[in-house]
Amino acid sequence: MRRTGILGAAKLGGVAALMMLLASTAHAQQPKPSPSDLQQHRTTPGGQYQPSLDVLGEQKVEQPGTKPGDPVLSKAEFDQANQIYFERCAGCHGVLRKGATGKALTPDLTKKLGFEYLRDFITYGSPGGMPNWGSSGELKTEQVELMARYLLNDPAQPPEFGMKEMKDTWKVAVPVDKRPTKKMNNLDIDNLFSVTLRDSGEIALIDGKTKKIEHIIKTGYAVHISRVSASGRYLFVIGRDAKVNLIDLWMDPPQTVAELKVGSEARSVETSKFKGYEDKFAIAGSYWPPQFVIMDGATLEPLKIVGTRGMTYDTQEYHPEPRVAAIVGSHYNPEFVVNVKETGQILLVNYRDIKNLKVTSIAAERFLHDGGFDRSGRYFLVAANARHKVAIVDTKEGKLVGVVESKGQTPHPGRGANLNHPKFGPVWATSHLGDEIVSFIGTDPQKNKQHAWKVVQTVAGQGGGSLFIKTHPKSEHLYIDTPLNPDAEISASVAVFKIKDLASAEPKYQVLPIGQWSGISEGQRRVVQGEYNQAGDEVWFSVWNTKAQDSAIVVVDDKTLKLKSVIRDKRLITPTGKFNLYNTRKDVY
Amino acid sequence: MRRTGILGAAKLGGVAALMMLLASTAHAQQPKPSPSDLQQHRTTPGGQYQPSLDVLGEQKVEQPGTKPGDPVLSKAEFDQANQIYFERCAGCHGVLRKGATGKALTPDLTKKLGFEYLRDFITYGSPGGMPNWGSSGELKTEQVELMARYLLNDPAQPPEFGMKEMKDTWKVAVPVDKRPTKKMNNLDIDNLFSVTLRDSGEIALIDGKTKKIEHIIKTGYAVHISRVSASGRYLFVIGRDAKVNLIDLWMDPPQTVAELKVGSEARSVETSKFKGYEDKFAIAGSYWPPQFVIMDGATLEPLKIVGTRGMTYDTQEYHPEPRVAAIVGSHYNPEFVVNVKETGQILLVNYRDIKNLKVTSIAAERFLHDGGFDRSGRYFLVAANARHKVAIVDTKEGKLVGVVESKGQTPHPGRGANLNHPKFGPVWATSHLGDEIVSFIGTDPQKNKQHAWKVVQTVAGQGGGSLFIKTHPKSEHLYIDTPLNPDAEISASVAVFKIKDLASAEPKYQVLPIGQWSGISEGQRRVVQGEYNQAGDEVWFSVWNTKAQDSAIVVVDDKTLKLKSVIRDKRLITPTGKFNLYNTRKDVY
Repeated sequence: MRRTGILGAAKLGGVAALMMLLASTAHAQQPKPSPSDLQQHRTTPGGQYQPSLDVLGEQKVEQPGTKPGDPVLSKAEFDQANQIYFERCAGCHGVLRKGATGKALTPDLTKKLGFEYLRDFITYGSPGGMPNWGSSGELKTEQVELMARYLLNDPAQPPEFGMKEMKDTWKVAVPVDKRPTKKMNNLDIDNLFSVTLRDSGEIALIDGKTKKIEHIIKTGYAVHISRVSASGRYLFVIGRDAKVNLIDLWMDPPQTVAELKVGSEARSVETSKFKGYEDKFAIAGSYWPPQFVIMDGATLEPLKIVGTRGMTYDTQEYHPEPRVAAIVGSHYNPEFVVNVKETGQILLVNYRDIKNLKVTSIAAERFLHDGGFDRSGRYFLVAANARHKVAIVDTKEGKLVGVVESKGQTPHPGRGANLNHPKFGPVWATSHLGDEIVSFIGTDPQKNKQHAWKVVQTVAGQGGGSLFIKTHPKSEHLYIDTPLNPDAEISASVAVFKIKDLASAEPKYQVLPIGQWSGISEGQRRVVQGEYNQAGDEVWFSVWNTKAQDSAIVVVDDKTLKLKSVIRDKRLITPTGKFNLYNTRKDVY
Repeated sequence: MRRTGILGAAKLGGVAALMMLLASTAHAQQPKPSPSDLQQHRTTPGGQYQPSLDVLGEQKVEQPGTKPGDPVLSKAEFDQANQIYFERCAGCHGVLRKGATGKALTPDLTKKLGFEYLRDFITYGSPGGMPNWGSSGELKTEQVELMARYLLNDPAQPPEFGMKEMKDTWKVAVPVDKRPTKKMNNLDIDNLFSVTLRDSGEIALIDGKTKKIEHIIKTGYAVHISRVSASGRYLFVIGRDAKVNLIDLWMDPPQTVAELKVGSEARSVETSKFKGYEDKFAIAGSYWPPQFVIMDGATLEPLKIVGTRGMTYDTQEYHPEPRVAAIVGSHYNPEFVVNVKETGQILLVNYRDIKNLKVTSIAAERFLHDGGFDRSGRYFLVAANARHKVAIVDTKEGKLVGVVESKGQTPHPGRGANLNHPKFGPVWATSHLGDEIVSFIGTDPQKNKQHAWKVVQTVAGQGGGSLFIKTHPKSEHLYIDTPLNPDAEISASVAVFKIKDLASAEPKYQVLPIGQWSGISEGQRRVVQGEYNQAGDEVWFSVWNTKAQDSAIVVVDDKTLKLKSVIRDKRLITPTGKFNLYNTRKDVY
């Protein structure tokens, strides 16, 4: 079993599985219905479709594009369905329902499937990655039926979110001139961890030495990443609901000094890092509307919005919903590196003069997702996950170096891991969602030219379902998590390779039973995202259970690979990503 | 009367008048209906709306967005209405009917107006610029009624036109290796004029010395501009139907060696002029879809398509249809200067590396239309016509210099006119559609800094309705046409200023009765677009009548302002724009 990937997920696109599982952990362990269950369900009277045309006291509205014969939804129903769709479905299926990591759900397709099929599919999910929204209890029967009716109608184009809408959400809680001029607290900011508390819509600031939760700060829902300004003073977090919080770490206590909503769904935020522009600008990328916004780094004032709708890099056809995935700040130019998922364009957005904005569109590969710099900071490597490839950009020259097969299924590097390979020199590594492969790509075109931008080695980890791979310049170890592996034992543990062992033909890994070490016995105890402290001598893992269950953070001694500490606290609700502020700020990974 | 503008047109946006008149010259002289005519028409039985639901043998289709109660069109009707809309209406009202130079025609508005109002408005037009499509006979009664029904439905999103669609239209009639390696004909290419024969879908190549029509070449409909490659060998023309012809002037006879359709509606084509890139690339900008395409300069092979949908420069809200207006090739950088109308962004598109395409978006002003370089070739001045402004770009530094009020209504410079003003030094001049004003803008920030980028003078010409202003470095005269002035005498003549007279407080102009000189007595004899020969000693004007009437080209001696020659030929159908190939190639204007 150990080397088996998530086969269904891999077939249908491993990220679909990821997104679904991330969204559905509350019911991840519900049994799937057997065919006879489905049969039985279809024939129950309660399953009969009765469009609620006669709801009293509710105004009937015309939905966009409603045709004769389409089920009609009341305004309240439509609004509810819309909200459910954006929160639960749009991430995979796309807001225009044209399909992305999930399948297309346009009415030409849904009408062929019919109401009952849709209802049952939403209720019971599929092994391919569709969550069982109904049988998990996440959605009530009426809500499932509402969604099935909703899907028979044309997609509602969600609202645009331009400067006016952004400004309406913009709040500066503490103006710049009311902020302290020096650090007012005793926090060791560079060894602080910003930890996403996914389902509570918060982050926890945890001290890297004492492991104490210093502060909990209210944020958007399911903060996707934390980023730190070049000076180290300001922490930026962005929720999946597209809310950006700017937190001043010099205040006592640290608090949100500004916030801005940049759309209805988003994933990425970054700050300007180039010399002379430290702390000056920030950028946030949205899933909907498909665009990014450059903001003032001290206030989040939205300055420049740029749409990403345009042509796919390869077939050069128009795409209405090219979502903004990872963004990093270049060290070599005053630029942000913006990855546009559906079109496969990597944008180098120059912030030197935003009134005369220079953008270089690099034709790379579709389904760009996440990635990071090589150790020199010059090259950016990004997974084109559904294409099983990695695109490499030279941020100094502003052009594509190449696109390579990752040699595994659905690479998901996070920011990846940089290490000195005993045979191949400097390499950048990624693990995979769809299988057990860990791939190493040479990143040194100067001294190791023959290995540069090639997959020089692949090794087998525990299995598929990996999200993050991690090491540190001072470490001799490489950690691979497998939180989305369906095998509970694998998902609750991590594999560790000794870097020097990578010289051998079939390097072995050691398994660390992090879930077991956490002391938690309930739940699937998914172990996710190793993160080093500033010193690079310990690694933190989230043991991530559902909201109703206990979660924890387990700290491992990097030298000995022994348990060092367990952080358990009832405030630690569904911890996922952890960002050591020094490593994040300096792109140490 | 002489100084009266087209008041109605000016109020509603002079360009609307232009577009409408350009589209409607066949019936420009039909009398407008009186209110009692309209009343009478409204009550005739024939005016009753009967949606043709029962057409036999035609398949009924669902149009996009059809709602219960909308008039239903058969597929054939829908296709016909769509075609009429794109050919006749989209130029002003926009393909998405959101309004531009014409009014918005979305169903929320059209339904309030109702079928009969729409039908009558389409039939009789309005003094504000709407042509009388019905009473002119341009559209039959059934077609007018069809359009009224069509407008009650949601706009049909016209098809996208990506790489596949372009490639499907791409034809290389003569491959590069089958073309001559030297000029095979005896044409004096640099003194050739490429003349648009608007309604016949052709261009005429006319010798500048003999005035002989050397060749007529079939092109797209209503060629909007001609441009010449840097070497002078290749002539590019683009029709309003978005068809680009590449004509090899070395062949005997010159002929179309490649063609490409770049969308369903377009206005602009240009070639790469920067040193080292001569003849290498071409670019075409489309109205629909809103995008531009970079092509191979020798074959028109489409290489890179870039969408222009995005944010308005000022309110930063998403616009679904930002059309590409004028494009010029920079002399200072390997860049095309692409003017995006609705968003007011001027794009500097760098063609040095089109795989890693660098585009600078300059926030300028909305409704960018046409413009040209200053005499140094460094600065580009473009009219933001509905905003009555001129935006100036420094193509060397790649940024906005400023945006100035033109001090007239709806500037329409064509490429403008550069001259050495006796008081203010080098200036660039524009006339106006909406009034009689001619404005001079200082363009010499080195030696005449105090005048640079200011309107240093305005003078009054004959009246509104001007499209083009013209002079030449060797000339002492400045010509202003007024083809769209409703006064027949004004539209059939041009005003000429002596440049040295501009030093006086109220400079006088001389009127040249070009229409009368043509010897044509029928029609409105609209005199349009002065164009110099290569030597700069004569100016050519089109005397532009409808397709069924005689037209001509009148050649004026620039020194004496006397008639030099009249070109009349039955093949000279609706001549409009004329492009002397040397002046066009070298940006002499």
